[in-house]
Amino acid sequence: MTTKPAPARARLKPEERRAQLISIGLRLLTTRPIHEMSIDEVAAEAGISRGLLFHYFPTKRDYYVAVVQAGGRRLLLHAADPEEGTPADRVRGIVDGFVSFVQRRKDNYVAVVRAAAGGDELVLEVFEDNRRALTDRVLHAAEIHAPTPLHRLAVRGWLAMMEEMAISSTGDVILKEDLVDLLVGSLERSLEQFAAVPR
Amino acid sequence: MTTKPAPARARLKPEERRAQLISIGLRLLTTRPIHEMSIDEVAAEAGISRGLLFHYFPTKRDYYVAVVQAGGRRLLLHAADPEEGTPADRVRGIVDGFVSFVQRRKDNYVAVVRAAAGGDELVLEVFEDNRRALTDRVLHAAEIHAPTPLHRLAVRGWLAMMEEMAISSTGDVILKEDLVDLLVGSLERSLEQFAAVPR
Repeated sequence: MTTKPAPARARLKPEERRAQLISIGLRLLTTRPIHEMSIDEVAAEAGISRGLLFHYFPTKRDYYVAVVQAGGRRLLLHAADPEEGTPADRVRGIVDGFVSFVQRRKDNYVAVVRAAAGGDELVLEVFEDNRRALTDRVLHAAEIHAPTPLHRLAVRGWLAMMEEMAISSTGDVILKEDLVDLLVGSLERSLEQFAAVPR
Repeated sequence: MTTKPAPARARLKPEERRAQLISIGLRLLTTRPIHEMSIDEVAAEAGISRGLLFHYFPTKRDYYVAVVQAGGRRLLLHAADPEEGTPADRVRGIVDGFVSFVQRRKDNYVAVVRAAAGGDELVLEVFEDNRRALTDRVLHAAEIHAPTPLHRLAVRGWLAMMEEMAISSTGDVILKEDLVDLLVGSLERSLEQFAAVPR
């Protein structure tokens, strides 16, 4: 097995170093739970000292939070609202981005979600913020400008369904395009039905 | 604050002791992630020695697996198929049991799910088995006797939606009965739509 030479001691700008350390964390997460990941291993992979790593991330927890945050940001970048077309077109854009992102890097996505779930309060909060941002984005794309708690509940539940389906489906069970269509349709119906619940 | 006297040194039958240790684990899980739970603390709460605990559960991992298994069994007991009435009645029975169980012990449910997510392969497997059992039960209740991978995918996604909605809704947002109705309806539609996907 050949491996790329370690980028040991390479002089990186601070923001490049941070990005490199976070990428290493995202990759290592696919091989073990976050609490079993070692800072020494991350530093060794980056070819820097443990001390230098702590210069960028003062505590192990800061590092973990940054890794989960970075995973969440990548997802939000991919699941972008096209901001043109009908509400259904816009929702479709988000769904297509989300499903494609998760299916392309399934192990990594699952690992980051698990890290958040198994993590401490701060890591969970990062995950919650991400879920809220996605909920807001979907409501905005669906042109629901004054969402009620029922609208939010409908979207939260549907996001969980979309995530589970993106993770547990493969192209030989359902084509991505068909899955996206079904998900766009089920959000529409779910929003209608929750809006019709008597208060 | 008054506390119940510790049942220290009480002579319990082996199966009672196991059950007691597992209950303690389920309760402690609501206060911290599983990998931060200490065996010494569990033993102390039970009023037994660490050595005696290891007599019942040879390793820490065995203990964790037993705790997550017990949480899953409790859920399956509550989300029972009434095994009579129409498919919709039977699905409604499962949904009502599931939502009631999760809403009554929300912290505990979330803690067990997180423990499974953040846990090692063995703990995850226990969680997967539980999810599969629930999927089979729902398909059976819905009288889908020869489920395809698409039927399974529809149920898996819907289970994730039900879980999220049960966790994140409260009675002042939606009455349990209304939530149950909406969930029963959305499973029916989802199964129809997934069955109609061209292969």
